[in-house]
Amino acid sequence: MIEDKNPQRTSIAQLGEFGLIDHLTKNFEITQASTLKGIGDDAAILDFKDKKVVVSTDLLIEGVHFDLAYVPLKHLGYKAVVVNVSDICAMNAKPTQITVSIAVSNRFPLEALEELYEGIAHAAREYKVDLIGGDTTSSQKGLIISVTVLGEADESEIVYRNGAKSTDLLVVSGDIGAAYMGLQVLEREKQVFQVNPNSQPDLDAYAYLIERQLKPEARTDIRTLLHALEIKPTAMIDISDGLSSEIMHLCKQSGIGCNLYEDKLPLDPQLINVCEEFNIDSTTVAINGGEDYELLFTIPIEDFDKIKGNPNLSIIGHMTQESEGVHLVTRANTKIPLKARGWDAISE
Amino acid sequence: MIEDKNPQRTSIAQLGEFGLIDHLTKNFEITQASTLKGIGDDAAILDFKDKKVVVSTDLLIEGVHFDLAYVPLKHLGYKAVVVNVSDICAMNAKPTQITVSIAVSNRFPLEALEELYEGIAHAAREYKVDLIGGDTTSSQKGLIISVTVLGEADESEIVYRNGAKSTDLLVVSGDIGAAYMGLQVLEREKQVFQVNPNSQPDLDAYAYLIERQLKPEARTDIRTLLHALEIKPTAMIDISDGLSSEIMHLCKQSGIGCNLYEDKLPLDPQLINVCEEFNIDSTTVAINGGEDYELLFTIPIEDFDKIKGNPNLSIIGHMTQESEGVHLVTRANTKIPLKARGWDAISE
Repeated sequence: MIEDKNPQRTSIAQLGEFGLIDHLTKNFEITQASTLKGIGDDAAILDFKDKKVVVSTDLLIEGVHFDLAYVPLKHLGYKAVVVNVSDICAMNAKPTQITVSIAVSNRFPLEALEELYEGIAHAAREYKVDLIGGDTTSSQKGLIISVTVLGEADESEIVYRNGAKSTDLLVVSGDIGAAYMGLQVLEREKQVFQVNPNSQPDLDAYAYLIERQLKPEARTDIRTLLHALEIKPTAMIDISDGLSSEIMHLCKQSGIGCNLYEDKLPLDPQLINVCEEFNIDSTTVAINGGEDYELLFTIPIEDFDKIKGNPNLSIIGHMTQESEGVHLVTRANTKIPLKARGWDAISE
Repeated sequence: MIEDKNPQRTSIAQLGEFGLIDHLTKNFEITQASTLKGIGDDAAILDFKDKKVVVSTDLLIEGVHFDLAYVPLKHLGYKAVVVNVSDICAMNAKPTQITVSIAVSNRFPLEALEELYEGIAHAAREYKVDLIGGDTTSSQKGLIISVTVLGEADESEIVYRNGAKSTDLLVVSGDIGAAYMGLQVLEREKQVFQVNPNSQPDLDAYAYLIERQLKPEARTDIRTLLHALEIKPTAMIDISDGLSSEIMHLCKQSGIGCNLYEDKLPLDPQLINVCEEFNIDSTTVAINGGEDYELLFTIPIEDFDKIKGNPNLSIIGHMTQESEGVHLVTRANTKIPLKARGWDAISE
C-alpha cells in the first residue's frame, strides 16, 4: 500500500547497490556514544566499555509476517525495528544500534523503499538506536527484511527467562490481545476492498486495535519504571507469540508452574467490544493473540506493595511448583491447562 | 543438491519453530570467552571488556546469490559464515560470534536444513565463532539466509577503508579470479547435466577453481601474519565484488588514485589454463571476478622490505594522487581507466 495513489516510480537498478544504500541511509544520524563507526566500511565499530552487549535478530518475510495489501511500508519499517527493540527490552537492557538488510523484487520502485526507510528512520529516532549497517539485494519474490539489534546493560541488570521462582507473582505491562484483533479488522477490510474497491472504510471504532497491529511500540519505559520502583524482575520475556506461549517459555526455562487468572487479564474496552462484534472470546484472544510486544515478567511476592495499583502493570497470576502445571483459572474458578500456543488452546 | 540420492524427508512442520531451532542448534558449542549467553533467551549476552566490537551482516537469497542446482547445502552453510567472517578480517579484527536466520519454503525437508547447519557448524568450528542467535521462519519462495557476525579488536588495530595515502603500496593476499571461473565451470556443468542427466562430469582439472567458488575461506591468518611482520595496513577491504570495485572503494574513501599493474596480478596456473579453455581474458576475470574473499590493503612504502617475497602477499600496484585517477597498467604499458565493476570494465 503506497499511500500516494499516483506514485513516482524510479527503478532501483538506476542507482546500483552502493548508490541505493547511500541514498536510503543518508539521513540517519549517529546518536549513541557507543557507535564509533556506522555505515560505510566492511563492518561497524562499537565501544561498549564496561557494559555487556545484548544481541537479537529477526527475519520478516512478505506473505508470512506481513501483507503489503494493508500494511503501509512506513509502518512496516517502523514495526521491523520495534519488534527487535522489544527483544532487548525483554532482557532489561537498553537498545543502542540496529543493522537492517533488505531484499526486494524489481516490482518495488525506489519510492517504496524510501517509505520503508522513513519508517525505519522514525523508529530509530524514537528509540534512539543508530543504524550501523546492513545489506541491500534483490529477491526472487517479495520483500524480505532482516534486522539485528544491539543493546547494552550492566551485568547486574540483565534479566533472563530462567530466574522465576515458584513463589513469584506474574506481571504484564499494558494491555494484551489488541494487536491480534487489529489484524482481524484489517483482514476483514481487505476482503471488503476486494469485493468493492470504492468502499470507504470507517475504522474509527477500531483505531486503537489497528494502531496496536500496525504501529506497536516496544516498552523501553518499563526498564526505567522498574528501576524507579526498585524492582528487579526474576525472569522476563516479551509477548510476540502470545501470552500463553510466553508463559510456557518462562515456566519451562525456570522449572516451575503457573496459575494465570482470567479475571486479571488487562483488556482494552475497544478489544472487548470488537471481540463481541466478531463473536470471538476475548480471553482466547488475550491469551493466544500475539504481537502485543508488552513485557511479561515475574517478581518476588515481597515486591507486591511496590507494584499494586500501578496503571502500567497488571498482576495476572502467580508461579507455582512445576508439579502443579500451568493453568488458566477461569472466572468460574475452573482450572484449564494452558497449551504452548495456537488458537485452540482454551476453546476445547 | 542433496547429496544422498534417496534422502529421508521429514516435514519441518512436525517440529514447530522452537523444536526446529533446538534441533538444528543443539550441537553448537560456545568457545569464546566473550559469549556469556548464546541461544535460548530473547537475546544473547556478550562481554567484550576493553575491546571494540566489530559488526557486519549479509543477506543471501536463493536464485540471486546461490543456485541449489550446483551448490551443496553443506557448502552453502559454510560459505554463508565465511563471507561474513571475511568482513571482520577486512577490519583487521578477530571474528567471535554469529547469528544465523533462515527462511525456507515447505519444499525443504528437515534433512536439507540439517545439511545446511552442518556446514554452518563446520565453519563455526573452523573460525572459532559462536552461534549465539537467529530466527527460523518460512518463506514464500526459496531459501533465504541472513548472517550477522561480531568480532573484537583493540582500537589501535582496526583498519578502515579511508586511511590509504598517495604514496602507499597496494597489496593483495592469495590469488584472485579463481572463484569466478569456478562458477563458470559449474554453470557449464549444470547445462550439460540438463541435456544429459546421466553424464558423469570429470572435474579434476577444475578442482581448485570449484573449491574457491564452493568453499572459499576467510583470511583470518593475514591479521596474524601482518602482526608478525610488524605491518599495520593503512586501509583494507575484502574482495567480494571484484578487485576493480574494491580498489575504487579504497581510492574514493581515501581520496587518492591508483596504478594497478597487470603483470603483478597473482593468478593460479589452473585459472590461466581454464581461461584459455573458455576463451576469456584472465586479467578481466582477475579484476572483475569477485567472491575471492582475499584481503586487499595498502601499506606505507617503507614497509616494502618486510613484505617482498612473502608467498602469501603480492604487491600489485601503488597509490597515486587523486588527480591521476585509477588505472590498470597493461603488460604493453598502456594505461586503461578502471571502472567500479562489471564485466565490460576493461574489455572496451
